[in-house]
Amino acid sequence: MADAIHVLNATATITHNYYPPTIQLPHYVANDGTVPSLIARFGALWATLVGGAFATIYYVRPRASRSDQIAFIWMCFTGFIHFFFEAYFVVNHKTLAGSRELFGQLWKEYSLSDSRYLTSDAFVVCMEAITAFCWGPLSFIIAYCIATQHPARHPLQLIVSLGQIYGDILYYGTSLFDISYCRPEKYYFWFYYVFFNFIWVVVPFYYMRQSFVEIVRAFRKIGEQSFVPTKKS
Amino acid sequence: MADAIHVLNATATITHNYYPPTIQLPHYVANDGTVPSLIARFGALWATLVGGAFATIYYVRPRASRSDQIAFIWMCFTGFIHFFFEAYFVVNHKTLAGSRELFGQLWKEYSLSDSRYLTSDAFVVCMEAITAFCWGPLSFIIAYCIATQHPARHPLQLIVSLGQIYGDILYYGTSLFDISYCRPEKYYFWFYYVFFNFIWVVVPFYYMRQSFVEIVRAFRKIGEQSFVPTKKS
Repeated sequence: MADAIHVLNATATITHNYYPPTIQLPHYVANDGTVPSLIARFGALWATLVGGAFATIYYVRPRASRSDQIAFIWMCFTGFIHFFFEAYFVVNHKTLAGSRELFGQLWKEYSLSDSRYLTSDAFVVCMEAITAFCWGPLSFIIAYCIATQHPARHPLQLIVSLGQIYGDILYYGTSLFDISYCRPEKYYFWFYYVFFNFIWVVVPFYYMRQSFVEIVRAFRKIGEQSFVPTKKS
Repeated sequence: MADAIHVLNATATITHNYYPPTIQLPHYVANDGTVPSLIARFGALWATLVGGAFATIYYVRPRASRSDQIAFIWMCFTGFIHFFFEAYFVVNHKTLAGSRELFGQLWKEYSLSDSRYLTSDAFVVCMEAITAFCWGPLSFIIAYCIATQHPARHPLQLIVSLGQIYGDILYYGTSLFDISYCRPEKYYFWFYYVFFNFIWVVVPFYYMRQSFVEIVRAFRKIGEQSFVPTKKS
């Protein structure tokens, strides 16, 4: 561990790899899972979620369009990530640096690209709390609305997608604002920090746009219809 | 100035009243306007905005419902606050502590309830930038949509109102998370910090709910209509 940073604590020397090197993590315990194994287990979880969601929509609404099937899968997937993975962070943020649970080790690995997850940063905890406990459950409700063709689907989809985009833009903005919380290697910056978060900008932007267009179309249709009797009267 | 805090700077002793007392404001210059005069000028600006917006909607759409008139006034008012008053902060945040312009002095007075506005706090600057340059112009576009009865009114109103609420909740959350940025007097906490920000939770919540209900009603109407030909075919 040639590049490990030694940080002096009141009682012991704590070695960690996070940036900036001056952050104090007295309760830090190194991961015991290797990076490929952690990522493989996370990938397997993602695949299970996507597969399970696909099977569900195929069973409950077999004649759903391909677009609705994919939207259902996305909402189940993002709901799970918010309500379980991100909620895990919110509940455990104070002790995360010492965790050896799967989600704990995943967050510690991710934190190499943003150490604020290990220091209970006020913005990160608040934003993640809203993401976990508002956007998480609402994503499942949207999935239900897609399955049942409920008229609340598009306003809810607009709300959650905008919430995800806004949270993500603030996340990028605050972390790039002054000091760097990311290790200098490109892998951490581009793969963990840019790529993973960018998913939650690009996909919600697609669904926000979709809902916006659908809602405007609905009002236009109603407007045209209500225009006729007005002319007659 | 009995309770003034003396903070030692490299070159001079800087006296300020902000919390926590340890924050460094080397460029600080005290306001020369009295508090009642500043608030009166801000109140006069609010009254002018509300009056101007009322005259505008009365002129361009005289038969607008009372509800639409009030919504138009609110959108013009909040658009102005975002795009001028909050944009002023975003553009000038680095030099704000030394400002003696009207908006600068108002922000310095407000900062007694939240000193992060004088220390270029990453979250506050990012959130205010999105509020000023996204929600600001969009509020004016919503006002236009109300005046012209455009079908994009409700999806836009949902977007801006949610953005305002989310920004405000994060604002409250981050400032209450660990240390206090507010002076201990109740006046600053309850009037500046709680009351003024709460306006942008309560009113947007009303408009978010209104748009949500209107959108669901629109889809329900279309759904009922499209149900008939499906049965016939």
